[in-house]
Parts: sequence; C-alpha cells; structure tokens
Amino acid sequence: MSKIRIISVIGGNRCSDETAKIAQEIGKNIAKLGLILACGGLGGVMEAAAKGAKENGGATIGILPGESKKDANPYIDIAIPTGLGLARNTLVVRIADLIIALPGEYGTLSEISFAMIFNKIVINLSNWDIEGTYRVKTVEEAIRQLKKELRIV
Amino acid sequence: MSKIRIISVIGGNRCSDETAKIAQEIGKNIAKLGLILACGGLGGVMEAAAKGAKENGGATIGILPGESKKDANPYIDIAIPTGLGLARNTLVVRIADLIIALPGEYGTLSEISFAMIFNKIVINLSNWDIEGTYRVKTVEEAIRQLKKELRIV
Amino acid sequence: MSKIRIISVIGGNRCSDETAKIAQEIGKNIAKLGLILACGGLGGVMEAAAKGAKENGGATIGILPGESKKDANPYIDIAIPTGLGLARNTLVVRIADLIIALPGEYGTLSEISFAMIFNKIVINLSNWDIEGTYRVKTVEEAIRQLKKELRIV
Amino acid sequence: MSKIRIISVIGGNRCSDETAKIAQEIGKNIAKLGLILACGGLGGVMEAAAKGAKENGGATIGILPGESKKDANPYIDIAIPTGLGLARNTLVVRIADLIIALPGEYGTLSEISFAMIFNKIVINLSNWDIEGTYRVKTVEEAIRQLKKELRIV
Repeated sequence: MSKIRIISVIGGNRCSDETAKIAQEIGKNIAKLGLILACGGLGGVMEAAAKGAKENGGATIGILPGESKKDANPYIDIAIPTGLGLARNTLVVRIADLIIALPGEYGTLSEISFAMIFNKIVINLSNWDIEGTYRVKTVEEAIRQLKKELRIV
Repeated sequence: MSKIRIISVIGGNRCSDETAKIAQEIGKNIAKLGLILACGGLGGVMEAAAKGAKENGGATIGILPGESKKDANPYIDIAIPTGLGLARNTLVVRIADLIIALPGEYGTLSEISFAMIFNKIVINLSNWDIEGTYRVKTVEEAIRQLKKELRIV
Repeated sequence: MSKIRIISVIGGNRCSDETAKIAQEIGKNIAKLGLILACGGLGGVMEAAAKGAKENGGATIGILPGESKKDANPYIDIAIPTGLGLARNTLVVRIADLIIALPGEYGTLSEISFAMIFNKIVINLSNWDIEGTYRVKTVEEAIRQLKKELRIV
Repeated sequence: MSKIRIISVIGGNRCSDETAKIAQEIGKNIAKLGLILACGGLGGVMEAAAKGAKENGGATIGILPGESKKDANPYIDIAIPTGLGLARNTLVVRIADLIIALPGEYGTLSEISFAMIFNKIVINLSNWDIEGTYRVKTVEEAIRQLKKELRIV
C-alpha cells in the first residue's frame, strides 16, 4: 500500500487573520514534513492551510461539496468536486491519516465527530472541546504531536 | 407540496433502559400527533423510538447506513438501505422537519452538527450541549416545544 | 422486517405525452396493488407515475438530488432531499424491491446499471436495451410480470 | 485554478489478460503525458492502468467504495476510501477532466452514464456502445484523441 500520508486540516470557511496565520503555519509544516495536505477545498482555514503548504513545496487536495473544480481555492492541486454537498465532510475525514482541527463552525464539528467514529487522531486547536481529541494550544505543540503520532523522527 | 411532516429522532445505537423509555415515549407522541418518525433505522434509541411510534399507529422510516433492508429494526415501515455508510447521517437530518436529539455518541453529535448547518430545529434531550439547539429536560417539555414549533394546536 | 414493498419507477425528467400516460398507468397499478411508489421526485416520468399513484390512493416517495423538499413534484408524499446530486440515483435503486424503467436519458441508464449491480429486477419499458433486464412492451405485460415477481395473486 | 489534469480510467474489476495489457498501455501513456491517473482503486482494469502509470513515473488516485485504504491495489498513491459504496462511481467521473473507458460490467456502464450527464468526454474502448462517447479501437487512437481533446501538442 501507498506510503504517502495525508493530513486533513479542518476549520471554518471564514476565519480571523490570526487563525489564518495559524492555518498557514500548519500547512507549511505539513509540506516540510513531506506529507500531503487535504481539506475541504474552500476558503478560510482551508485556503490558508493550502497556501502554507503550496508556498513550501507541498501538495494539496481539496474535497469540494459542489460540482465544479472552480470552487477550489487557488492553492489546491487536486480538486475533487464531489457534488455530495456536506456529506463530503465524511470524505475529508476518511482520506486522512491524521486530522488537525482549527477553529470552525458546525461543519468542523461534524468532521471532528466523524473522525471520532472512524477512530482517527484529531489534534485539536479548534473551539470545539470534544472528548477523544488531542488538545493542544500552539502550532509547535500540534506539529510535535503529529510527528509523534506518525512516528516521524 | 406534501403536508406530511417528518420528525427525526436521533440518538445512540445502544442506550440505557431509561433512555429507551424516553425514546419510546417520544415515538408514541410523534405518532399520536400524526407525524412520521424517521431515524437511522438501527438499535438503541432508534429502535425504541420506532417501537413507540408503531405501537401507537404511527409510520416509521429508517435510513440505514448499510446495503440491506434487513439491517432495520423490526419497527421500521420504510427501510432505506443507503449503502453510504455514515454519510447517511446527512439524510437523517435532511429528511426532517424537526429533530429530537436523545443521548448518543459521536454519530448523534454529527447529526446535531448537520442540523445546525441546515438550519433545522433540534429539540435537545441529549448529552451534547450544543449552542443553537433547544435544550429541554423532559419528554413533556420536548413535545410542548415540538407542537409550538410546528404550530400544532 | 417490514412487509411494505416499494416499486421504483425510473425515467426521464421530461417525457412525451405518450410516455407520461404510460407512467401514470404504471403508477395507478402500483397503488392499486397496495405497493409504495418511489422515484426521483422530479418531473416527467417521475411526476406522471406519482400522479397515477396518488390519484388511486397510493403513497409516494421522492428521492431528490437537491437540498429542498420544494423540488418535489406535487404528487410526492415523502420528499427526501438528499443533497447528494446524482449520487442519489443509487438510493432510488436501493430502496426498491423491484424497478420499472420507462424511457429516459443517461440518468435512467445509470439507474438500470445500479439495479443490475445490486441484483434488482428491472421490468424494462425504456429505450435502453440492457441485458439482464426484463423486456416488456406494454403496461399490462409490465404489471403481469411485476405480480409474478412479487408473488401477488 | 490547478493546472493538474486528471484522466479517469474505468473498467471491470476483473479483466482478460488482453484487456489488462491495454489498460497498462493506457496508464503508461497517461503518465508519460504528465497527467494524473484516477480510477476506482480496485483490481482488473483499475490495477493494470495504475500499474502502467506507476511504472512510468506517473501519479495515481484510487477512489474506493469501501472504508479502508488497504482495499486499494498496490499501484495507488492516493487512496480515498469513500465508504459510499457504489455511489463512489459518481466521484470517479467527477474528478476527471477526461475519461477512458475499457471493457467492464454494469459499474463501468454507470460511470459512462454519469460521464454523459456531467458532460465529460469519454474515449470509449469498452464493450458498451453508448451514444455520446467517442468510439476508438486502439490505444494509439485513444491517446491521439486524448491529446486532441486536452490540446496537448
């Protein structure tokens, strides 16, 4: 089986400048570790994280709710227009070997829920304090935990 | 458009006897109000609620994750084997004119999340304390609120 | 398990008057046999078949591609707005105990394909001549075959 | 928007040695043109095409019906375990900028149907003679047509 590992970054379609900065930093780290970044392909956290990855030589996947690749933000390499509406949230989770949650709304909460159901590790920098996720407070802590979980030395 | 109104009851696939009793009572009330009960079609809260509806002359719909109608609990009239796995949770929410949440795990949380995204009213008797839901403590309170929301006099 | 049996009628979202007449006749027969009619919930064959069922005391289910119950034609009792786009075609097939195919385009062909994959009986009055379906030429022949398949005497 | 272009190769989960050879040759050509190969991720045509791409330095995506990345054939780089069952066929089509159809059964037919609905070009080497597809007889002809459609000089 493929050795390529995918990290899904989940979070709001809109976000504060501060959250965007964090998302971009997360994306940058994912790229630098040679991991692929997946996300919902739209704006806010998804766009900032993809930007951070692309600016650092990473590859990005955007799993879109709509029917057009054009819905993807400009930093998505592989756009998957599912046409499934919000049911695509299950795919953002299923594709991931590990998930990093940033601040978001109910969509993000649905993705954290599915991650828990599918027994995926969620490194949680979000506003949703859900039991079973791995709570961290900084990007550094998140990346340290990610490396530990994926046994990256 | 159809005048038939559908109430989705969401909650755990396993549940305590106490929760089952509450679910059954909710199902009974839904049936007595001439509403259709929808649910995820499986056990626990879903089965108890469907039982309560069927024993009181109601009609029930079970939206199943798997591929076989046989997965449905014995109180489901219309079994919909979606084959979509947990993505079927979006359908349990989308079919509903109103949702009643009983205790459950992450699947229930995903459904509450989708209900918030789709602007559905959630009358919340569950363990998940999510902003935007209508918190109640008893079956009576839940049904009173349901009647108010649906303008049933 | 539920004894309620569901017949899905598939066919074009637009259709000729002649096809509409046949669809209506099929819907009427489904209703008179005490079976539930399911369809894609939209216009053309779906609407004519649902009309035929409703005018004869039957019950109808419409499995819609979009997010709104309002997309359903006026003869649908239970509207299921899946939000899944054309992936909903799998559900129109999965819900059925037997399928009747009327003239339609590629959507109808996709449904016939899924019916073959899921080992469903397709009584075929459509323009698609697909191996594995049961070819008939008249409504009478279709209903005779339906009764035989479902062991209705 | 991304300049990466994706070709979906569709066809049976089992296939003859002759078809496997053709699929492998198609995969090889896709890789050599710098295009990404997508497929349903399983055996038969999907495996042979992915093998052909991987052996020639290409990248491959497998959109799986099940819940596990382990279902993917050994030549898949990015495995997407959708958990959607056969509804995943819509995604194999939606991800593609162009589709090449090889011999297959009803699943292949469902994908050709969706391709026609979504207005995708299908270069057709399959056993399904469907109007609207572009019929070719050899790999050379298929690749020539692919290059023409994608304006590759």
